[in-house]
Amino acid sequence: MISAVERKIEQFIIELDDAEVMSLYNQLPFGKRLRAKLILKIAGNSLSAIKTAGVVEMIHTASLLHDDVIDDAYTRRSKPSINAIYGDKTAIMLGDILYSKGFLELNNISLEVSKMVSNAVIQLSLGELKDVSLSKAFNIDRDIYLKMIYQKTASLMEASAGAGALLANKPPKPYMTYGCNLGIAFQMIDDILDITADSTTLGKPALHDFEEGKTTLPYIYLYEKLDKEDKAKLKSLHTKKLSTDEQNWIKSKMSEHQVIEQSYGEAKLLIEEAISLMNDRGESGLSKIAIDMIDRSF
Amino acid sequence: MISAVERKIEQFIIELDDAEVMSLYNQLPFGKRLRAKLILKIAGNSLSAIKTAGVVEMIHTASLLHDDVIDDAYTRRSKPSINAIYGDKTAIMLGDILYSKGFLELNNISLEVSKMVSNAVIQLSLGELKDVSLSKAFNIDRDIYLKMIYQKTASLMEASAGAGALLANKPPKPYMTYGCNLGIAFQMIDDILDITADSTTLGKPALHDFEEGKTTLPYIYLYEKLDKEDKAKLKSLHTKKLSTDEQNWIKSKMSEHQVIEQSYGEAKLLIEEAISLMNDRGESGLSKIAIDMIDRSF
Repeated sequence: MISAVERKIEQFIIELDDAEVMSLYNQLPFGKRLRAKLILKIAGNSLSAIKTAGVVEMIHTASLLHDDVIDDAYTRRSKPSINAIYGDKTAIMLGDILYSKGFLELNNISLEVSKMVSNAVIQLSLGELKDVSLSKAFNIDRDIYLKMIYQKTASLMEASAGAGALLANKPPKPYMTYGCNLGIAFQMIDDILDITADSTTLGKPALHDFEEGKTTLPYIYLYEKLDKEDKAKLKSLHTKKLSTDEQNWIKSKMSEHQVIEQSYGEAKLLIEEAISLMNDRGESGLSKIAIDMIDRSF
Repeated sequence: MISAVERKIEQFIIELDDAEVMSLYNQLPFGKRLRAKLILKIAGNSLSAIKTAGVVEMIHTASLLHDDVIDDAYTRRSKPSINAIYGDKTAIMLGDILYSKGFLELNNISLEVSKMVSNAVIQLSLGELKDVSLSKAFNIDRDIYLKMIYQKTASLMEASAGAGALLANKPPKPYMTYGCNLGIAFQMIDDILDITADSTTLGKPALHDFEEGKTTLPYIYLYEKLDKEDKAKLKSLHTKKLSTDEQNWIKSKMSEHQVIEQSYGEAKLLIEEAISLMNDRGESGLSKIAIDMIDRSF
């Protein structure tokens, strides 16, 4: 049914009646459409569900366009990003167009769904801003980090699942917790892969996050466990272009203190809670999506 | 009553519950709040009108934040812009936050108002994109130029006036035409000032638009009137850093062919139509706003 969502998004783009936007949109790489899948799995294939899925994916695409400008990212799903080809200005404006078309279409779904999704976009933008400002300092506060990834990554998945539940007259709460846990775990695993995967798989240098100033969960746990001298050493490497020796030192300390396992365990716990919630409701399709996430490139 | 709108916006910002956003917002220069004034003049001082005015001004501020990034503008109302102080990333994200909070709040006003304003934000973003892409070539098509300034500048003023009318149970059509005409005329006059005002008043170099690639109305009319040789010369100066001699040549040709008068006359006609529409409805306060616009720095 994802193809029905693709057709709905294409219709939204056609309604914008702008040849340049159509051409730009056609150059965007297709995503996994994870949020659309959640909505359809929860709400079924009604027209409202397909519309909501289209809107949420359009909003997600808008956020990625701005995200790539923010992160100076020149590839997206192994294709050159819009900012790489046409510059930041075009990427910012295309993002604004997709956001505003998404918000307009929310008016044609339901007030409850519209409020839920709009609120998630606020959280998402606040999370992006926090991500930028946190990376200017050496953040070692786990709660601040968790709130940021909730806002940046989990809020829209939480709202997608919640909107699906609203459309299907199911209780929103367990679905929102499911979406939220999936989102946080997804970001945690993404952050771990930045450390453990090789740079060819990632399409970016290893330990890129730390060089960019991002102290993700494994760094926060590592810092807690290091002695005073090593704490200072880790801190001194923050935002630096790392030599191979320095990269190896970080990785060996992480291995010594098992912080990757600790971080991964935390992500797994969230996913297990999500699976258990869905099993309780007989939602085996949603449990399956969660199981697949644990297995992702790991 | 504008102070009630300011308080409403401040409340919206407080609700975001983010210290960084509050601090950034406090550093934004206050605007003329023209759109809020239109709404309150048309709809009176009801809570819905104040909310709508707050939302529209928040959306307008968001568009200016992105606009300053797009235009590499480092000042806004004689103060350093957010992108100048904190960089493009912060300006983009703050814009996204204000946009999404605005869209969320539209859900608490009325469906009709929400659709009207959302649609204007789509037009505004399409207009900004068009502004960027048009400036890459030497555009001499007046209709394309007029559509772009309608989208970029007039659409949100049209929607503000229309939303005000909806809230007050007045017929939206004449108010929308009024707002639309005001918006187009406002942009035309702004474009003329880029040519006629001195650079100290403008806070940017004279003929800046043409150097940036923008062929505004006076350039389009001038090109129509020049002979073949001068047409080629004008075209050759497009997007170039202009010498004083080149600037003087353009200005003298504009004076010879009276294209500033022609462009200004066109703006004036739009404003006169707006005034006449409002006089017919006994809306003297709105006529006054339109009259003040003709006199602006001219």
